[in-house]
Amino acid sequence: MSLSKNQLKLITSLRKKKYRVTSNLFIAEGIKVVNEFLESDFELERLFCVDASHFKNCENVTLISEADLKKASSLSTPNNVIAIFKIPVTNFIENEGLVLALDEVNDPGNLGTIIRLCDWFGIDQLICSKDTVDCYNAKVVQASMGSLTRVAVFYTDLKVYLKSTKKAKYATLMDGENVYKTTLPKEAVLVMGNEANGISTPILNLLDNAISIPRFGNLQQTESLNVATATAILLSEFKRTN
Amino acid sequence: MSLSKNQLKLITSLRKKKYRVTSNLFIAEGIKVVNEFLESDFELERLFCVDASHFKNCENVTLISEADLKKASSLSTPNNVIAIFKIPVTNFIENEGLVLALDEVNDPGNLGTIIRLCDWFGIDQLICSKDTVDCYNAKVVQASMGSLTRVAVFYTDLKVYLKSTKKAKYATLMDGENVYKTTLPKEAVLVMGNEANGISTPILNLLDNAISIPRFGNLQQTESLNVATATAILLSEFKRTN
Repeated sequence: MSLSKNQLKLITSLRKKKYRVTSNLFIAEGIKVVNEFLESDFELERLFCVDASHFKNCENVTLISEADLKKASSLSTPNNVIAIFKIPVTNFIENEGLVLALDEVNDPGNLGTIIRLCDWFGIDQLICSKDTVDCYNAKVVQASMGSLTRVAVFYTDLKVYLKSTKKAKYATLMDGENVYKTTLPKEAVLVMGNEANGISTPILNLLDNAISIPRFGNLQQTESLNVATATAILLSEFKRTN
Repeated sequence: MSLSKNQLKLITSLRKKKYRVTSNLFIAEGIKVVNEFLESDFELERLFCVDASHFKNCENVTLISEADLKKASSLSTPNNVIAIFKIPVTNFIENEGLVLALDEVNDPGNLGTIIRLCDWFGIDQLICSKDTVDCYNAKVVQASMGSLTRVAVFYTDLKVYLKSTKKAKYATLMDGENVYKTTLPKEAVLVMGNEANGISTPILNLLDNAISIPRFGNLQQTESLNVATATAILLSEFKRTN
């Protein structure tokens, strides 16, 4: 009925990417999110919870106190459970349909929202540049609400991927073609860029098409859309027309 | 070259809604956001900055130290300036076109993102239920990135407004009509609901039409889209077709 010092140390260490990389482990929290991982192909390492009735037929369960939960949790309002899962080994073999690629998206909330959007729009492969925020970051895991169990996220050299794929390649820019007036193909890679700087030049040079979401305001002052809301609109456009 | 105790107390007190309501003042931070408010019709009460060269021809400027800025700021990385502005008195007279209405949206980041979306899509009137998070909350002001200077936000009894308007009224639901197959009118009110509970029953009873963003994933498990990303997609749909 308690969390050992070493267990607490392991859990808090997994907030840092370098410990996730060396241990191949990550943390999920909350009854709903943890159950989604349990029901998926992800492999549980250990589960710590206050009330085990939410996790039937589950091995590797340690009961802990509310006080221990609070100590170990990265959430402001912890919700019963902290689970350690193994980071799966994934091999990328390109599927049919739309692939989304992210070039240095930094904000964990944005990445989490984008993974959830991929899940909604049936996009099961998300390719990230190596400097995109880690999808096993605790904030990404929470913001994606279990969608990580259904969307495969690959970190790779985007240049190598873009050179190898035969899909049509779309950049999202401020001055591209009006997306509402463009015929979008079913087989495509859509590239979204960094929050502050957009798509980097070496990546941009490898893309064939540039699209934009037109601005409707009279005053041309709104600087840009947030990368997650822009992704929402563009995935909607690719999917409604294909 | 310093911030008085009373000034610091005033600034930190304005993080709470009750002090904003009694004083009719709010806080904006950062060079870019503050300059957008200065260039708008918002009235400056006082501006505290480390480097005044960013705010030319501006009265009511007090120079402060980096240490004072850090003490007064609500940001993790303060950016040169904290300004106190007056909350404007606004009278609602309905404009032509699309009006967005929010029923108890709670998260400040979501409201800020939605205000920024309204600005992008040229929607200059946003109606909020009285229990929607305050748009002068510091996190909303920062997330909306100056868009508050171009979008008028009104807090009112949504039931009274919906009964009075002659526009077509659209609810966003999980099981409404496919938005991609619906003809959307130019004169409309689009209602978005609370993050956890959606649109409340008394409001829903006043709406004529229900629309949904279809889910494309094979596995029907993605629970819902975040309210800000759903708003992005729906505003895009209303605007591209009108």
